[in-house]
Amino acid sequence: MSGAIRIGIIGYGNIGRAVEAEIAETPDMRPAGIFTRRDPASVQTAGDAAQVHHLDDILNYRNEIDVAILCGGSATDLPEQGPRFAALFNTVDSYDTHARIPEYFEAIDRPAREAGKTAVISTGWDPGLFSLMRVLEEAVLPRGRTYTFWGPGVSQGHSDALRRVEGVTDARQYTVPVEDALERVRSGEDPELSPREKHVRDCYIVPREGADLAKIEETVRTMPHYFDEYDTRITFITPEEMATKHAVMPHGGFVLRSALTGDGSRHLAEFSLKLQSNPFFTASVLVAYARAAWRLNREGAVGAKTVFDIAPAYLSPRTPEDLRRREL
Amino acid sequence: MSGAIRIGIIGYGNIGRAVEAEIAETPDMRPAGIFTRRDPASVQTAGDAAQVHHLDDILNYRNEIDVAILCGGSATDLPEQGPRFAALFNTVDSYDTHARIPEYFEAIDRPAREAGKTAVISTGWDPGLFSLMRVLEEAVLPRGRTYTFWGPGVSQGHSDALRRVEGVTDARQYTVPVEDALERVRSGEDPELSPREKHVRDCYIVPREGADLAKIEETVRTMPHYFDEYDTRITFITPEEMATKHAVMPHGGFVLRSALTGDGSRHLAEFSLKLQSNPFFTASVLVAYARAAWRLNREGAVGAKTVFDIAPAYLSPRTPEDLRRREL
Repeated sequence: MSGAIRIGIIGYGNIGRAVEAEIAETPDMRPAGIFTRRDPASVQTAGDAAQVHHLDDILNYRNEIDVAILCGGSATDLPEQGPRFAALFNTVDSYDTHARIPEYFEAIDRPAREAGKTAVISTGWDPGLFSLMRVLEEAVLPRGRTYTFWGPGVSQGHSDALRRVEGVTDARQYTVPVEDALERVRSGEDPELSPREKHVRDCYIVPREGADLAKIEETVRTMPHYFDEYDTRITFITPEEMATKHAVMPHGGFVLRSALTGDGSRHLAEFSLKLQSNPFFTASVLVAYARAAWRLNREGAVGAKTVFDIAPAYLSPRTPEDLRRREL
Repeated sequence: MSGAIRIGIIGYGNIGRAVEAEIAETPDMRPAGIFTRRDPASVQTAGDAAQVHHLDDILNYRNEIDVAILCGGSATDLPEQGPRFAALFNTVDSYDTHARIPEYFEAIDRPAREAGKTAVISTGWDPGLFSLMRVLEEAVLPRGRTYTFWGPGVSQGHSDALRRVEGVTDARQYTVPVEDALERVRSGEDPELSPREKHVRDCYIVPREGADLAKIEETVRTMPHYFDEYDTRITFITPEEMATKHAVMPHGGFVLRSALTGDGSRHLAEFSLKLQSNPFFTASVLVAYARAAWRLNREGAVGAKTVFDIAPAYLSPRTPEDLRRREL
């Protein structure tokens, strides 16, 4: 390898900070700057290895960045930044609006190809590792059923939905997999499971003073799609309890596949993650796929790529010989 | 796709029969013959789709086989057949002598490259999926420790070792992971585990009539590498018990990685398999990698390949668009 891979960090929220910290501990990479829409002088970085620049100045650093890790959000940042930066840099992102991924892929693929760049989209854990496991488990066990369970962990989307309810000042929603449903899958029962049977939605809500708690409960429980199809637990708490008991962002989940082979034997494949910090694990996955993006680009594999298109060896800093000798 | 992938089945033992059954249920493949060292007329196949030929006649079928699945054993069949057939066909095998894989890879790589063929070696579950998970989990969680536990399941190697003991007519050895050790890993304790702490070796032995049972026990318990480093349970049983209670070959195991990210958070990734039939699951994995071998070869990716070199999408019969839309 000719020197460390130079990583541009685009966006400096939870994920950007976590990527900065992970890069600092990754020997084959080094930071090539943090790019933010804020005034760079106002940004206090966690480490001291990376300079902070304004995002508008990023073209000045075009020759100093091997891979740009896009750390913005999926709602508004990435739909705009993804296609734009894929024409300038090799990129990696964690775009996670499942329903719009095909459209996002198309929007990225053409500019990346035209520029001879490689853009790895929708990494992280779901989409990302869980997607990879769904495809892998189905491919090796084609006659069966795949189940994804999420949690226990904080769902940002559901927490945001709670915060939009009239009378709510803050909220946290934990998605909790139903243990009995997991056991039914593991036992080989091959059950058909409704949303309600798979997950409980456990809500911690800080109400505004004098708010109508019964009305908040009613609004939450009947909220279409988010809560109405689930058993929803609601606990009202104080701002102090929110700050002390709900500050960390653990998450995780399970991808299970139960299937039969030609002799009638049943097999179970199960992958699970238990993450103490969702943003730090996501950052760690982004960093591994940044390595892959760089290597793929050097081999001429340009355009948009997903976790499905990338062989495991590209993610590892170790040599193919070493992997074969020690891990195969 | 231009027609089904034509699969040659090389060897017709447990794995060969299972591959035959799996191919019969795989819409994008069809059998292109079973090749055996036995008299073809003496071989009764399970299905009726595949013709049986003598292995010596295989060159006559050179243009009718897209991928040859090598179903022989790792001790003597594959070291000879692997390099020979890699010069004639795209191949897939489940070579599982871990220590000799680098040498096997080299022996296959050159003839495959020279012939423009693709040879996927050492698939199955370990080596195979477990190897893939060890590399994947380490790549996304670089600062931690990986643990592989096997079982509960039959170890052929250890069963064979028991059968070689004087006074033993038949034997079955189950490798059983120690639940307490698994829990210590899952709890994030990051333990250093000796062989004895990880697995129990549970032996069922049919002694010859009048054999010295105490001597058999002593020989087994002190057998270097196989049993001396483990807690070994020995149960003497009758041939009838062996036939009725120990006929199936379940297996499975766990690949766990516990690791820290830059903020000090701890994360656990865990992959497990519970297999009712070891040979059928192995066959099912071989079939998925046969699809990959064929596709890689059509793209010009020749030479020896391992699970580390193959992107997940190559294993699936589904289109990239469909995978992105429904699984990402």
